[in-house]
Order: sequence, then structure tokens, then C-alpha cells
Amino acid sequence: MPTMDHDVELLVIGSGPAGQKAAIQAAKLGRRTAVVERRQVGGVCVMSGTIPSKTLREAVLHLTGFTQRGIYGQSYRVKEEITIDDLRVRALDVIRREVDVIRDQLGRNRVMLLEGSARFVDPNTVEISRNGSEVRRMGADNIVIATGTLPSRPDTVAFDDRTIFDSDGLINIDRIPPSLVVVGAGVVGIEYASIFAALGTKVTVIDMRHRLLDFCDGEIVEGLQHHLRDLGVVFRLGETVAGVEALDQGALVILESGKRIAADAVLYSAGRQGATEDLNLEAAGLKADDRGRVKVGPDYRSVVPHVFAVGDVIGFPSLAATAMEQGRIAALHAFGQEVRTTHGLLPIGIYTIPEISFVGKTEEELTGTSTPYELGISRYRELARGQILGDSHGLLKILVSPEDRRLLGVHVLGTGATEVVHIGQAVMGTGGTLDYLLDTVFNYPTLAESYKVAALDAQNRINATTRFTS
Amino acid sequence: MPTMDHDVELLVIGSGPAGQKAAIQAAKLGRRTAVVERRQVGGVCVMSGTIPSKTLREAVLHLTGFTQRGIYGQSYRVKEEITIDDLRVRALDVIRREVDVIRDQLGRNRVMLLEGSARFVDPNTVEISRNGSEVRRMGADNIVIATGTLPSRPDTVAFDDRTIFDSDGLINIDRIPPSLVVVGAGVVGIEYASIFAALGTKVTVIDMRHRLLDFCDGEIVEGLQHHLRDLGVVFRLGETVAGVEALDQGALVILESGKRIAADAVLYSAGRQGATEDLNLEAAGLKADDRGRVKVGPDYRSVVPHVFAVGDVIGFPSLAATAMEQGRIAALHAFGQEVRTTHGLLPIGIYTIPEISFVGKTEEELTGTSTPYELGISRYRELARGQILGDSHGLLKILVSPEDRRLLGVHVLGTGATEVVHIGQAVMGTGGTLDYLLDTVFNYPTLAESYKVAALDAQNRINATTRFTS
Repeated sequence: MPTMDHDVELLVIGSGPAGQKAAIQAAKLGRRTAVVERRQVGGVCVMSGTIPSKTLREAVLHLTGFTQRGIYGQSYRVKEEITIDDLRVRALDVIRREVDVIRDQLGRNRVMLLEGSARFVDPNTVEISRNGSEVRRMGADNIVIATGTLPSRPDTVAFDDRTIFDSDGLINIDRIPPSLVVVGAGVVGIEYASIFAALGTKVTVIDMRHRLLDFCDGEIVEGLQHHLRDLGVVFRLGETVAGVEALDQGALVILESGKRIAADAVLYSAGRQGATEDLNLEAAGLKADDRGRVKVGPDYRSVVPHVFAVGDVIGFPSLAATAMEQGRIAALHAFGQEVRTTHGLLPIGIYTIPEISFVGKTEEELTGTSTPYELGISRYRELARGQILGDSHGLLKILVSPEDRRLLGVHVLGTGATEVVHIGQAVMGTGGTLDYLLDTVFNYPTLAESYKVAALDAQNRINATTRFTS
Repeated sequence: MPTMDHDVELLVIGSGPAGQKAAIQAAKLGRRTAVVERRQVGGVCVMSGTIPSKTLREAVLHLTGFTQRGIYGQSYRVKEEITIDDLRVRALDVIRREVDVIRDQLGRNRVMLLEGSARFVDPNTVEISRNGSEVRRMGADNIVIATGTLPSRPDTVAFDDRTIFDSDGLINIDRIPPSLVVVGAGVVGIEYASIFAALGTKVTVIDMRHRLLDFCDGEIVEGLQHHLRDLGVVFRLGETVAGVEALDQGALVILESGKRIAADAVLYSAGRQGATEDLNLEAAGLKADDRGRVKVGPDYRSVVPHVFAVGDVIGFPSLAATAMEQGRIAALHAFGQEVRTTHGLLPIGIYTIPEISFVGKTEEELTGTSTPYELGISRYRELARGQILGDSHGLLKILVSPEDRRLLGVHVLGTGATEVVHIGQAVMGTGGTLDYLLDTVFNYPTLAESYKVAALDAQNRINATTRFTS
């Protein structure tokens, strides 16, 4: 029960994106706030997740001359012999700076930062320990669980962090493998598959499912998959992995279908578990599901009303951007503040090569709900900017209601996808229609122009339908 | 007078961005349309202006490793010895493709393309000639002048296209000059100054004015100028050029203040003239001003109602994006169509290194009209994406009305400025407010996130003012 004699008004467990934003929001409301972190400030996001993988991606794009191949030819490389150190030096630098930024933000907002592992003692008390011994107990009016996830490590996979890695460990690989098998084509798996493919590694992607990234628009995923095949990626979909064994050189992946695939390295990225095992949730009156996740309502409250959970520990979409928003909202709810949100307009950004981003509905969803729509497409190769960048695969697709002309979804594949999607999101979020895009002047030459081209395409299709049916 | 027995309903003189869009809009309305072009389809924009200079810029950014210097150190280069051919091969390729795209667009829309020089015979008739002999006459209900501009070439400057260039000629320079003087710090001058500075050329910029790009926000221009000084650019502002003389090696710029500046090459980019000299405007009942420009009203009609003028030939801002919109609007007016526009929300994009873009009002304008505003700033170096990109100079500034919370202006300096400005423009154009930016989830890590950071900053300032005054 919230009482004013607790040490803090909000205690956040975990300092990743979700935890940080929860703490900072509470602090900005003038509430006494603390964050517990058992490893590195910033969490997996900074240490081995989003930040290092995106930095690695940027380094690969640059050092391979990848973005320039449309111009200088497929064999173009900036650096003939790329070593893992070329890639890592940059990641370490960005990690260091990002940790500084986060520490600085927490400090400026007077959020207490406690290093150690947290464990519930009762619903309002958390014990913090280092190296197994209790350091202190903290009483808190409200508690936010933002502990994120850990990679699943099934017994059938002989993880050795030498040739067989989970998704947190791959960033520490000591050389660029000539061949790599990626088991599990989720966001992390497919991001790494594309990064290594761009580096020239022969990549095989294995997944139980028959369709990659099934929450994304089918046409966009098809474009990505086509592009990855161009880079030599082999897809083995609808396959179940029976086990992964270490070899003297490399590793062997054994499929239930009887296939055996040897490679220099294996990334096992099928599934992550909520990092709740050590929290002693029972003492708070909580119970994680079989994947370690905490169930929450729309206000991110668990079944215990003053205990919230946000970020990857609650499941889909497990993206940093969404996690931050969940953290912020949970803190607002904790203190009874008005919460304005943009529900349904959460952008999805996937940092594959080429990158994918979307907001709103997919064609599949609209068809599933019998919602009529018209589409408009723009291909980067038809834009001056696309030609200048040498991006011949990029495309932007808008889905428009033929009735009220509102945008129902925006889907982008290609250079800058995660940035330009926000133009369409702004139109959707402010109630703008197709007409805004038709009438707007975009800088020339930009990728943003693709909105105008797609809008004209959608308008032409709407006109054509009107002509035939009137 | 418009009559139906003319050859075409719309004749466009000039096939640059303005002319193309006028012609395509008319064709889409089902009107018989023709375009006359005396040089290359696409006009100066494609041949020697926007397209080659932006392609050159992109090649320079890549080959110099410029964008990576924040990460790999100031001395980092992708290619030690960059030759002009490295840069040009790419520009020629993009030009070729862009010409194809334009020809294809005109063809698909059944716009007649006439090669030759146009000259008015009477207000509805244009004579088209090649090599001085008349090829044909075209009668037209409406005529759009979209002839663009030519560089001013004063007699006191000894242009030789070897060491002394105008802004259309510089693209043909045969080597990267160790030193370059740029006379005239308009958009084109300052774009080239920054491109050559990034290549390692010692650049001196001379302008009569005391302030660069005075239509842009002062803080943004200051940031650009600071960055250019970092690259070794020397500014000589408030200086008038008395003359430019060719030397055996290089050229000499003589200032009225008595200074003499020698350099390997000189770019004289002070002023452009409307390309109207050969049009025989008098036969149409028109007269250009002393800078060759045609005066038009808000509907782009000249004093002769069925003769329109659009694009650079009418003056500021002389940007391709704006020119296209003017062309489109002129064609709509020509055929009495309803015109919806986003007046006042024309974006300005300047492809310097780093690039600049803005939409809406500057701080100076708002102060000048006594319009209260609050500002919010985000610096790229505080964003994860900024760190990954190594862009430490970038910044985004929003200007917000403290009364109705609407955005009054968005100003961006740095990577992706010309793209991300459109997010703010969409909010402004659809009537969104600061609250939209505060509540929106942006992909992480992106530059788009700077909107959220800037919005929080603006909100904090608004809160502080409220606290002190209430």
C-alpha cells in the first residue's frame, strides 16, 4: 500500500530504456525515485543489444561501402580486409558515450542509482544485494519491473561463446565468420543475418515459421527477403532445430527434417525469456508466465496494482522505442497523472539491411478486418534521391481509406526507413489525410518525396475505381 | 486569347523541375501539352545544378569518409587520393538515369517534347528554332515560362572555365583545386564551398553581405559557419569584388578594400539572371526586370493573363522543390482548377555539409512581428543515433506558440536535415501542436527522436515561464 514513509515513491528495477524513462518521468513529477541495476547502466540495450548492434550495422554499412554498391558496383569495398576490431572499436566508443548520457540524465533528474540485484521481500520492499550479500532494503510506494529479457538457452544447443552464440553474446565474436547459421528469424536474428551477409559471410537462416516477421506487411518482408537472397542468404523456413553441436572448427546444426548444416558460427536467437527468475515475484504476490513474462493491463499495472511492468519483460514488440513509452506511461499512472497516448500508432523499426519501418495497419490486417483500403507505392529508384544514394530496392507504401482519405498505414523498406516513417506517422497522428501529402512540398532531392509519389499513386487508383464504378 | 484551334492547350518553355511539373499536371487534366527545351531535358537542374551538385556532395561525403570522422578521427579518409573522376563518374551516371526518368514521365503522360529555342511571335504563338533556323511555330492557349536562370557574368571577371568558373561551369572543373575562392555566399556558393572544404581544399568565401543566408535562422547559420570554419573555410564578409583576373597558375581576386586573394580556382556565384533574353518577351506583351525576371501574381500569372512564369525565372527561393510546386499550381490555374496549397509551409533545403533545412518562421521573423514564441532544442550528440553517426554538430530547433502550442517553425542543421524537417512540417501542416511531439513514440535510435527531445525542452521552458509569472 502506498504510504509516505517508504524510502522512495517509485523504485524501478532495471535501467534499460523502459526503466530509465519510468524513473525520469517520476522524477520530473517531483517524486523520490530510485533505479536498481545489477549489471551495466542502460541494460542489455546498451551492453549487447540495440546500441552495439546498430553501431555495428552502421560500421558495416560504411566499411563495406555497402550503400555505395548501387553506384560503384557490387564488388566495391571501402576496406578490403575488415576485421572485427574495425567494427568493435566503434561500438565500444558509442557504448561508453551512451552510458555517460544515461548516467548524466539520471543524475540531473536526481534519480538515485543503486547497483546490485533486486529481489522482492514483500509487495512494497525490495532487497538489493551485491555478490550475494544484501546491501540494503528499499521500501517503495510503487515498483516498476523493467528487467528485460535473457536469451533462451535450450539444453540441446551447446552454447560455448566461441562458435555457438546467443543473441547477447554474438557481439563478442572474435572474428567475422566465413559462414553463419542463424536459428530464429525474429527481429534480432534477421538483423544480424543481414549485417553478416553484408560483410560477405554466407548466412543460412532457419526458422520454424514459414513466414518471416509476420507482424510486418507481407510485401515489405518479401522485398527484404528478396534482397537478402541477393546477398546470398539461404532461408530454411518451416524447419525445427533438433540440436546444435560444437565441432573442432565451427558448429553443426541438426534439423528435425534430417538436414545437417555445418558453419563457422551459429547464432541461436530463437526466443528470449523474461528476466524475472531472481526477482522472487511470489513475495510481491506475482507470478511470471512460462516464458518469464509479467502480465499487465493497458496501464501497465500487474495484478498487484502498485507494481508495474514495462519493456521487453512484458513481451511484444520488445523494441526500445516502445519500451520507453511504456515506462513513461507507467510512471504517469503510478502518480495518477493524466495520460495522453498515441495508442495504435507505435512505430516498428527493424534495423536490417535494408531497414524496415512501419506504423499503423498492414494490408493483411485490413483485409482481415474487412476494412477497405487503397494503396499507393513509391520506389526509391524513381526518386532523384534514390538514384543519388544508389538505393534501388527501397520502397514506401501508404494504405489509404477511400472513404475518409485518412492514412491507415505507412510501410517503408530501404535507406532511412526508420526516419521517414515518422512523416506519415505525424500525418496519421494529427488526423491529416491523403490531401496533405498531395499538397505538400518536399525538399528535392529527398526520400521524403516518396510520400508525394505514393500519394499521387493512391489518388490515381482511387480515381480509377471511381471511374469504373460510377 | 484561348481558343480551341491552337496546336496545344499548354506550352511550357523549359523542362527543368518547374516546367516538367506544369506539363505533367496539364497532361493529367487531359490537356494537349508540349514542352520546349533548348538544351538538355531536365534543364540546368539535371545538367549542372541540383542533381550533379547533390551527387557530387554524396560522393564527397562517402569518399572522404566525412560522416565517419566523428568516429574514426579527423584524419580519416576512405580514399587517400580522390580525383575529380571519382566524383564525376557518379554524377554522369545519375544525370543519365534522371534524364531517362524525366523523358519517361513526359512520354507516359503524352507530353510532346520539342527540342529547340523558343521565341514569342505573339502572345499565343511561339517560334521554335534549332541552330538559328525556325523548325516550327506552336500556337498555345496558355504558355508557361519556366526557363530558369543563367549565372551573372560581369565583365570584371575573366571567366575562362579553366580556373575561373561560374556556378554552372564549376561541375566541369578538371581537378580538385588545392585552394578555391567562392565569390557570393548564396545557396549555390555556400554548398560548393562546403563540398570543397570537405575535400580538403582551402576555401575562402567572399560576400558583400555581412550575414550568410539571411533568410535562414541565425543560430542555424551560425552553427554552419562555425562548422565550416572548423574545416578551414575563411570568410571575408562585407567585401566587394572589384575584379577577378586569370594568372598563369590560378586566379587573382581583387577586393575594393584593397585585398588581393590568389587561389588555384575561383567560383563566381554572385547572382543569376532570368534566362529570358532570347524569348522576345515584348511580342507577348511582357517585359523582364533588370535581372531578367518575369513578375507574376500569386497565381503565377504574368501581366498577360494566359502567360505564366514559374521556377527560378521568378526569383526567390530558386529551389527545385518550390519550382515544381509553382509549375503544378500554374497549370491548375491555367485550366480553372481548384488549387489547394500549403502556402507559408514551403520547406527550404540547403545541401551544405552539414545540411540545413527549415519550414515556417525564423526567430528573427517572429521577433520582427512581435509574435511570442518559446524554443526547444535538441542536439544530435545527445541522441543515440547522433553518437552512432558521429554527428556532433547537428541540432534541431522548434519554435512554439506558448498560447495555442502550435509549431511556428522547425530548423535543422546536420545529417538528414532535409528529410527530418518534414516530420515537423507534417505536424504544422495538419494543425498538430507541441502535444503531438510530446506524446509520440519515435523509433530508437533515430534522428527523428530529436523532435521529442526538443519538445520536452520547449515544454520545460513554457513551464518555467508559467511558474515565474503565475
